[in-house]
Order: sequence, then structure tokens, then C-alpha cells
Amino acid sequence: MILHGRIPALAGLIFSVAAMAFAQTSAPWTYAGHTGTEVWGRLDRAYEACSRGHEQSPVDMRGARLNKSLQPIEFHYIAGQIKLENDGHTVTAQVRPGSYIVAGGVRYDLKYFDFHHPSETPIKGKLTDMEVHLVHESADGKMAIVAVQLSEEVGKPNAVLASLWDQLPKKAGASATVTDMVSPGGLLPADRGYWTYMGSLSSPPCTEGVRWFVFEQQMSLSRDQMRAFAAIFKMNTRPAQELRGRRVEADE
Amino acid sequence: MILHGRIPALAGLIFSVAAMAFAQTSAPWTYAGHTGTEVWGRLDRAYEACSRGHEQSPVDMRGARLNKSLQPIEFHYIAGQIKLENDGHTVTAQVRPGSYIVAGGVRYDLKYFDFHHPSETPIKGKLTDMEVHLVHESADGKMAIVAVQLSEEVGKPNAVLASLWDQLPKKAGASATVTDMVSPGGLLPADRGYWTYMGSLSSPPCTEGVRWFVFEQQMSLSRDQMRAFAAIFKMNTRPAQELRGRRVEADE
Repeated sequence: MILHGRIPALAGLIFSVAAMAFAQTSAPWTYAGHTGTEVWGRLDRAYEACSRGHEQSPVDMRGARLNKSLQPIEFHYIAGQIKLENDGHTVTAQVRPGSYIVAGGVRYDLKYFDFHHPSETPIKGKLTDMEVHLVHESADGKMAIVAVQLSEEVGKPNAVLASLWDQLPKKAGASATVTDMVSPGGLLPADRGYWTYMGSLSSPPCTEGVRWFVFEQQMSLSRDQMRAFAAIFKMNTRPAQELRGRRVEADE
Repeated sequence: MILHGRIPALAGLIFSVAAMAFAQTSAPWTYAGHTGTEVWGRLDRAYEACSRGHEQSPVDMRGARLNKSLQPIEFHYIAGQIKLENDGHTVTAQVRPGSYIVAGGVRYDLKYFDFHHPSETPIKGKLTDMEVHLVHESADGKMAIVAVQLSEEVGKPNAVLASLWDQLPKKAGASATVTDMVSPGGLLPADRGYWTYMGSLSSPPCTEGVRWFVFEQQMSLSRDQMRAFAAIFKMNTRPAQELRGRRVEADE
């Protein structure tokens, strides 16, 4: 009975040590150069899925099959403080617990969102200026990523980016806490029609079993918002991977 | 004797027909999406080198070995009219005959130059905003490409781009003739120190046997010049390929 209360603490400690060990021992990787996208799978045994996986992301959104049984995603996002981290590959926005989605009857909690320039998921072979990935995890460890394309064609600034970009950490390893209350819901388009497919994390370790939801409607960002990110990351986009028998489905 | 004058015309006709046939039958390819960089080698038998080649481009410029026997490249560029063509992958600037370089004792004639955003050749894993490839060919069909990085960090406009960009053809298949006299020499940095290696065309058919010269000094372009190109091509950059035993050499 005494152990009862200590097991979670011990499990937490083990998890932290494991996470630290992983962070220290996993191989460095990049989008460009000699540790770039073409060789990720050979940089570290932990990254094997990047080259040997059969359900990798991103994939081109084309030839989607209508699946009328797909339900709208329920979004339960709340505003909160955000911690921005530049990990050398992107800027991640860590959110406070409490935001979640329900998709296919499963609840997935929002963990963080991050940014890619240019966009990572091609739409019929075309990229746009940026893409946000809202990364969620269910209680039993299943991952779901909601992808939103951001285009400067309209040029209207994005309100969430307006809250975050003043404190955008420019150097790898830098971080900043945004004290304003920010709702990730500001990253979602009005029309929630989506494409969906089974894929992976789009960066090492390229873990598979990730349910992707890619919104069909783009959001706008201003040219300055785009440039502020592009000045830090010239390109953090993995090339499109092969479908290998998978099908993209559309909800409408 | 009558044939004497007609053979070149006939050869020209045959060449044109062959060029048209090639243009019509080679498979479409893209930088993003389901015909993207990862599958080029399987789109067309003519593109096999893209996946099976062992000396592909671009490669990361790092760990260069000094080779004191490398001579400076002699540039003999002349000003002339330029025809800009948007081929759906980049904008190519076709030059009038007469410009050439001498490198390693070989004369290579300048055929055209084209543009990539972001830059294509990583420098120690880093990309910059754009890269120009000045593509040359010797009388016996050997190719040499001079690569120049363009960065908007300084922000000073590039004079050659200033002459060309007003007529930048925005749609695939569009072209424009720049009637001003333009010298490609305006794309070359003051310091001509370079890295060199043997590689390939960096787009299908990925033909090998290409001598690359990558200038160490960057040129400047303005943010507007960069954006004008990026608005047409979000990303036309092949990921870095493996060296596979090749070495990059430096002339100084």
C-alpha cells in the first residue's frame, strides 16, 4: 500500500531518465546536408522507420476517396500560456494540458504544435508557405496530427502567430514563455473538411501509427509572419513519401 | 557537294525532332508530391540515374580537401539578350552563344543559367535563400556547372536579377525575351574561391559526369527579389545526396 503512491513517481523518474538518455544518445539530423532527409534512416537505429517504414509521412493529398462514415473532428481547445522552443529543426509550441480533440470516437490530448516552411503535406503536388502540425496523443499512446496549411496569398496576419512571433526563439536551444493567453483554436479554418490517412511522425524517429487529419481549407498569414519564420528555417520540410497501398480518405 | 550545305540543316532538323520526342515522352516530375524527389528514378527509364547513380548532386559542402593544383576559373562572359523560360520546375535564362569559361584547361560554353529556392547545395548543412546554376558544356559534351548562393541577409538587390525579374514568366510554359543587354558576370562574386566535385544534373534525368564548381562567397539579393521567385516556386530544391566516396576539393 505504501508503494501504491510511489509507483507513479518512480515511473515518472524512469521516464525522465529514459527521455534524457534518448535526447543525449540519438543521432543529430537535419533537413539539408550530409545528415539530411535521404539518410535519416541510417543515422541511428532508433530512426530505422525513416527508411524501412511503409507508412511514412508526409504524403501527397490526391485521389482521396470519399468516406461518408467519417465524422467531423470535435475540437475542445482552451486558451493558455505557451512555451516556445527552438529545437534546431522547428519551433514547437508546448501547450498547457486541457485541450483535446475527439476523432473516430477517440479522445486525443493536444501536446504541442509546430511549424514547417514551406508546407510539408503537398496538395496535388503543390506546397504552400507554411504548415502547422497540432500533435495529439490518446491515453493509450495513439497519436493524431492535425495539419493546417498557411498561405500568404491573402496576406491577412494570423492571430495566433501574432501572439507568438514577437518571442520567436531564433537560436537552436532557445525558448520563451508567452504569458498572453493563446488559444490554438485560432489556427483552425472555419471549414473543418479534412483528408485523413495513416502515417508517421514526419521527422526522426519517424514513428508510424499516426492518424493524420489535413484540413482542406487554408489559413492566412502575413508575408512578415512567414519571413520571420523563414529567416530562422530556410526549409524544414520532408519530401513526400510513397503511399504504398494506403488511401487518402475525405470526409465530404 | 550539294549535300555539303544541307547536312547541317538536316542534322538540325533531326536534333529538333529528337528534342521534341524527348520532351513529349519523358515522364512529368515535380519537387513535391507523388512525383517528387524520392521517386524520380522510377518515373521513367531515362531517369534511372536519379536513384541508381553513385555520383549525384547536390552534395553538402563540408570537409573539403585543399588541392593546390586547382587553378582559378577563367570567366569570359559577354553581355547579350536573354530568353527567360518557366519550364514548371524553374526559370531558365537562355543566353546567346559567346560566353564561356576555362577550367582545368577545358573550355566550356555557357548554355543557360537557372534558379533554385531555397539554395540547393548545402554549405555545412545550411541552405540559404537562392542558388543560381550557370550550366556550361564543352565541345565534346562535358558539362560544368558553376553554383552561386544568393542571400537576402545583406538585402542589397542583385543587378542581374533587377534586369530579369520584371519579366519573370510566372506560368509554366511561359517565356519572355529580355531586350536589355545582360551580362551573366553580374552573378559572380568578387572572390572566386570555390569548392569542386564530380556530380550530376540535380534534376531528371540526373545525368552524371558533371563537374561542379560552388563559389564560397555568396552574392546578395533583395527580399523582394527573393519573394518574386518564391511566389512562383515555393521550393525547387533536391535534397542532398550522398558523397559515396567522393571528396569535395577546395582551391584555396
